[in-house]
Order: sequence, then C-alpha cells, then structure tokens
Amino acid sequence: MNLINETHDINLTSWVESANQANIDFPIQNLPFAVFRRKNSNEEFRGGVAIGDQVLDLNVVATANIFNGLAQEAVVAANAPALNEFMGMGQEYWSALRLALSQALRAGSEHQHALADALVAQSDIEFSMPCHIGDYTDFYTSIYHATAVGRLFRPDNPLLPNYKWVPIGYHGRASSIDVSGQVFHRPNGQTKAPDAEVPSFGPCKRLDYELELGIYLGKGNALGDAISISNAENHVFGFCVFNDWSARDLQAWEYQPLGPFLAKNFASTVSPWIVTTEALAPYRTCWTRDENDPQPMDYLESAHNREAGAFDIQMDVLLESEKMRADGTPACKLSESSFKHSYWTVAQMVTHHTVNGCNFLPGDMLGSGTQSGPDHEEAGSMLELSRGGKESITLANGETRTFLNDGDKVIMRGWCEKEGFNRIGLGFVEGTILPAK
Amino acid sequence: MNLINETHDINLTSWVESANQANIDFPIQNLPFAVFRRKNSNEEFRGGVAIGDQVLDLNVVATANIFNGLAQEAVVAANAPALNEFMGMGQEYWSALRLALSQALRAGSEHQHALADALVAQSDIEFSMPCHIGDYTDFYTSIYHATAVGRLFRPDNPLLPNYKWVPIGYHGRASSIDVSGQVFHRPNGQTKAPDAEVPSFGPCKRLDYELELGIYLGKGNALGDAISISNAENHVFGFCVFNDWSARDLQAWEYQPLGPFLAKNFASTVSPWIVTTEALAPYRTCWTRDENDPQPMDYLESAHNREAGAFDIQMDVLLESEKMRADGTPACKLSESSFKHSYWTVAQMVTHHTVNGCNFLPGDMLGSGTQSGPDHEEAGSMLELSRGGKESITLANGETRTFLNDGDKVIMRGWCEKEGFNRIGLGFVEGTILPAK
Repeated sequence: MNLINETHDINLTSWVESANQANIDFPIQNLPFAVFRRKNSNEEFRGGVAIGDQVLDLNVVATANIFNGLAQEAVVAANAPALNEFMGMGQEYWSALRLALSQALRAGSEHQHALADALVAQSDIEFSMPCHIGDYTDFYTSIYHATAVGRLFRPDNPLLPNYKWVPIGYHGRASSIDVSGQVFHRPNGQTKAPDAEVPSFGPCKRLDYELELGIYLGKGNALGDAISISNAENHVFGFCVFNDWSARDLQAWEYQPLGPFLAKNFASTVSPWIVTTEALAPYRTCWTRDENDPQPMDYLESAHNREAGAFDIQMDVLLESEKMRADGTPACKLSESSFKHSYWTVAQMVTHHTVNGCNFLPGDMLGSGTQSGPDHEEAGSMLELSRGGKESITLANGETRTFLNDGDKVIMRGWCEKEGFNRIGLGFVEGTILPAK
Repeated sequence: MNLINETHDINLTSWVESANQANIDFPIQNLPFAVFRRKNSNEEFRGGVAIGDQVLDLNVVATANIFNGLAQEAVVAANAPALNEFMGMGQEYWSALRLALSQALRAGSEHQHALADALVAQSDIEFSMPCHIGDYTDFYTSIYHATAVGRLFRPDNPLLPNYKWVPIGYHGRASSIDVSGQVFHRPNGQTKAPDAEVPSFGPCKRLDYELELGIYLGKGNALGDAISISNAENHVFGFCVFNDWSARDLQAWEYQPLGPFLAKNFASTVSPWIVTTEALAPYRTCWTRDENDPQPMDYLESAHNREAGAFDIQMDVLLESEKMRADGTPACKLSESSFKHSYWTVAQMVTHHTVNGCNFLPGDMLGSGTQSGPDHEEAGSMLELSRGGKESITLANGETRTFLNDGDKVIMRGWCEKEGFNRIGLGFVEGTILPAK
C-alpha cells in the first residue's frame, strides 16, 4: 500500500513565499485544517488551511468555485463554523480537497490570482474548536507511562495483567475541551493524604499536564458495526497535540473503582490545527511487538498495521512560569518524546473501540494517552518527571517544580521529520493556570 | 421552600378524557416532554407533551400562539427536533410553560377548541431521543449495589474507602444512547476466565441490564463556575428511566485501572418521556445519612437537601423472553426498587460534578447508577440477583437465567405515588438483544 503521492513531494514550492522557508510547521506538503476568524472581529468562524505564516480562508475558496467534483463539495462543507460535515464525508473527499489545495497553492498555479484575497496572516486570527467533539475517549498507549504511573500507585504490581492484551481506554469529558490558549482555574476537590484519617477539601496540590496526541475520527460507523483493522485508518481524519490536564491528588482518592473523573474533566486543551492522516503518510513507520510479549489478538492484527501502523510524530513540552514572563526569559523544555513508542497503533485503538459495536460520529476524538518514551527524561507528565512528587525538577532559570504552579503556562509541540521529505509540524497547544476560585 | 403549586392539585381534571382515569402514567399533573412524530411518516420530529393516552403536539401549540410571555417563548423553543434549547432556558421558562399547559389542558379551558387538533394518539407515534446528549456521566449512588458488586469483585473489601465521601461517577459514552425500542447485537470482546492463562475473544457471556434513572441537565454552567448545592436543582430539567446495559465479563477483564469501557458503551437506552423536576415535587422526601457514617462535606450539605433532596421514584424491571413472546405469556417481573435509597441526592451529584469547574451543557445526562434496594430481591441487575452468576433465577414460566439470553426484551418502568396526590409515571424503556454478529 503506497501512501505517498504527489502532495508529499519535497520539491513542491508555493506561491505563498513564507511556505517555502526551511523547518517551518506549514509547508505546502502539510495543509492542516482549523476553524478561525480575524481576531476581535464579529466574523463567522469558518474553515481554514495553514500555508506558511498565512491561513487560506475556505470561505473565499468555496465561494470562488474554482475546484471541481469531490474537492468542491468538500470545500463547501469545510466552509462552516465546525468541520464535522467535511470530516464525515470520508477519505475520497479529504484526499480530493488536499490535492486541489496542493495544486492551487503551488508556485505557478492558475488559481494564484483568484486566491490572493483568500490569505489571512496567522498573526491576525483567532481559533475556535475545529469541530464539535461528540465523544472523547482517552487511551493509555504508552507502556512506559503506564508502568511509571502504575509503580507510583501500585509499587508491587505496576503494569496490570490486561495491559498487554487490551488497548486500555476510558471515556472522557467532551464539554471541557477547548482550543489552545485555554486559561482555567486550578480545580478544587476532595483529596486524602496517605496518613490522614479523613479526606479534606481544597485546591488541587498536584496539578499536572499530560503530553498526548488527539486523534480525530472522520467518517463514523453505525451502532453495531465494528470497524475492522484493515478499514480502521479510513475513519481517521487527522491529528493534533493535546494536553490532558490532570489533578493527581484528586485522581488518587477518587479513581477506584470506576476510573478518573473530576481529576480530568476540568479542562483539556487541543492545538488548533488538524494535520490529516494523509499528510502524515511519509512519517509512518513499522509497528513491532516485542517477541516476548503477547502478540495482538486476531482482530487487532494486520500486515499493514505491522508495516506502517506507527506514526513517528515527535513531541515536546515546555513550561513558561510567571517569573519567566516577567523576566522576559523564554519557556524551558521539560521533555521530548515520540508517538512511535506507542504500545498500540491508532488503527488498533479504532478497531478495539468499535469491536463491541460502539459507534463513532464524525469529530469524535481519541486521546493517545500520555506519550512517555522509554527513558525517564522522555516522560510526558510531571508525575513521572518528579517521580511522584519526590524529586524536584529544576527549570532553566533556577526555579523548581514538582507539579504545576499558578501562573504556569504549558506549551506542547508536535512535528515530523524524515530524510527525503519536508519537516511538517502540528503547531502547538498552550494553556495557563489561574489560582483556584 | 414550598415546591407544590396548583399544577400538582389532585382535583385537576382534563378535557382529554383519557387523562382522568385512575392509576395512569400521564394525568394532567404530570405533563412530561418527549420528541415524536407520527409512525412511518416523513414528518419532522418535534416536542410533545403526554396527556392521558394522547400526545399534545407542540408544533400545533407553538403555531396557535395562545400562550404569552415566557410560556410562548418556551413552547416555540420546544417545537424542535431536540429539546436542548428549551432545556437551556432555565427554571422560569420551564415553570411558565408547565403552568400554561396545565391551564390549557384543564377541563373547561378556553383553549380546548384551539388544541383539539393538537392531539395525536400515543399508539400512532414514534419517538426520537428527546435531546442531544453532549456528555453522559454515570454515577454509582446505590450503596447496596456498590456493596453487592464490590463483594463479587473484591470479597474482602467490597466497599472502597472513598464511597461514603465521594459521589463516585465516571464518564460514559453518549453516541450509543438511544430511545426505548433499541435493538442491539450482543457485544463481542475480550474476556478472561479466572482459570485461563490468556484471554479469549468472542460474544459476551454475561450480558446484564442496570436499572437506573437518567437525569437531564437543563441550564448549563460556564467552565470554571461550580454549581453550589443550594442552586443545583435549578439546573435539573427532569428524569427518565434508563437501562445501562453491561457486559460483565468484558468489564471484569478491562476495567482496571481506568474503569469500565467496552463493557458499557455498546448500548444504553432511555425512556422517551422526560418527567420534569417540578412534576416530581410532591414525591420528594427527606434525605438522611446514617449517623454512624461520615456526614457529607460542607459543599455537599444543605438544609433543603436534608429536607427534600431525595425523590421517591419507584422502579421495576421485567423480562420478556422469546418463549414468552411465542407462547403469548406476559413479561415477568424481576425486581422492584426506589430511588429514595440513593446514598447521594441529585443535587449532590450536580454539585460534586462541577466543584472542580467542569461545565454542563443543556441536555447532558447523569445516570443514577443501578438502583438496588437494601434487600437482595430489590437488586437492579442480574449480576446481583444471580449472585455473580452462581444462582439461577427462575422466571414465571419456568425458564431460568443467570444473565440475559439472545431474544430477551428487558422492560423498566418508573412511577411515583403519594397520599393526597395523583400517581404519575415515567413511562417505560425497553430494549431487545439480538445474537452477536
């Protein structure tokens, strides 16, 4: 299955000059989607595509009526305050629009004149959520994260017996997911210190981030119809960077026996751009399972999944404290990891989620779970970096943390690089913590 | 706080004759909302109100323009294929429309002539979901259920230490909730027998129902704004009967450490009518906490909650097997219980859910959790009735069950009765199991 096509060609350049610079997130080979409008305007939110430091306004493109067939139908659907309808159209439409956009934005395109008015500087826009997320499910696909966290909660039994068989996931809260720039108050709640007789109530003392990818479902499935692993990727529209904020002390007290609840649902933040599965084709890689581990059950196994099921999406997380902002010092990096370490692939998540007949709707989101890498330095949460709060982390300016402070801004980025292809980026997601109410 | 008003008066009668019979679900004191259309028609779905064996078509009522002020605004909003907008208007609007409907449907009303064409026989209609459920959260408020189930999973430690402090809840799947009449295939999935070395894949062998109430949120709250217990009930639009189908063998293998997932999200079924919180006022009762138990934390405590926080909603569950249908014998009752046994009140659920700033949207649903009563015979699931599948349940026609068979239809009903007031009913929810695919 050759997933590479002309839209990935490293030699393509754009008539949008800023898209031709080296090492940027949004060259013409990327073409991610978001929903935007001009900052401080009363404009309707509508779909847009990133190109260099500009966004291509899909309202203008749809109205210009320069595309044909599926591509034109798709761009009309994407000219909306939420991309759900477009996402629900399926692979043929996504791919047709991608090709049409790639051709229209290439150097020498006949459409350059028609689209000159369709560009808005990214510095002049604000985003909304790219789609309505009906249901959000968080997975737990990093075995390094599961082991490190399990060790803190259950030192003798860090990795539960089901982990290597079941792509563990649980339902999350969709209403409190917002787009990058989210600012929220430190949550209040019940906690119980290990040595306390009774729980107490107050602001969370162990506020944390989780470095995740968000995976958007495109075309859904009818209730009762499982999605086979060979068909799973046709349902995956694209990816974003995702911060699944977590209140560790609330979680420790509340999570048994039905799982995390108030520890997770106070805020979750997505990056604004959805990088399509098609754009990520060059950065796919083989997926392997250690031969000493159980191999996946039949319903989670396919040759294609072995050959190209994994995505080498690199990610990092940075922290900008109030002091850094006051001093004008830049945010400092806390860790860096890659989604290629995931114990389960996206296709396996999709197939497992629907094997009982559960239905996806266009725009539903899966969280990858915290993407910690094999080394301690690659941990995707402060819980892991500080070894359960026992070791202080020293920041670049000398400040220390075990968990997040009020005023801290957390920034996460994602990108892909591969010999013979352009670097493309997922952009970034940021969020800031206010004091508890 | 006197919650009783003229709409609850037992002496009210309606010009819709069928509403004046004894012991029916929908006398004029009830007035629940649903979304319906004529069976096998291409009509738009729209809001309706049950009265006797009829439904009052809110499209006709809204168009007739016979109400004033808030009531007219409310009925216009409820003339829609989903009630979310109406539910989001808040208590004043709900109450104004209830009073206007009560007056218009009373014997001798000046509006009888205008509304004669607004009645459709309930036998001639079909329902859709009454609203779009953005997020669904399932609670676990029956201590009898929590103890009985806990004993099966953890014999030495049935009730976890947090149970008496935290209104335990977890996020569920909204996409697979459908309205009464839902027919679904037995789910497939991974299970692991206690004596097996590795898990196996196949149809669920321990398919179960859960007898619950569904609680619909009306007016929402902004992210970050907790809802205090004194204000909680103003956000609760109404109640339905809810079957939270469960695959016990899938659950046992998958649920640690993040909670139930595929064991729950293959199907959940609501009754079509939403009985408003206002209609339930007469059947409210005091809420007590055993003096030997921990008392609620301050944020979950109020005098009103003590005085009238509980709802004495009686519920039962019946089973109709394929054989019963073939033989023409009626469904047989499995158990009966009441929501008054709940360890936590609805107000406590709402307040706890938002204490960390989590936001509700109009139409969000809370499940009460399985409402098992104190006696074994009052258990709200087969898992409990069959003591974990160890004791066979004999049905009225001599068939036996430990869990549900293919072809079984499960029917749940809810109703309220109190001296000095009419009986009102929540109607029923039913669903039928097809063989695994």
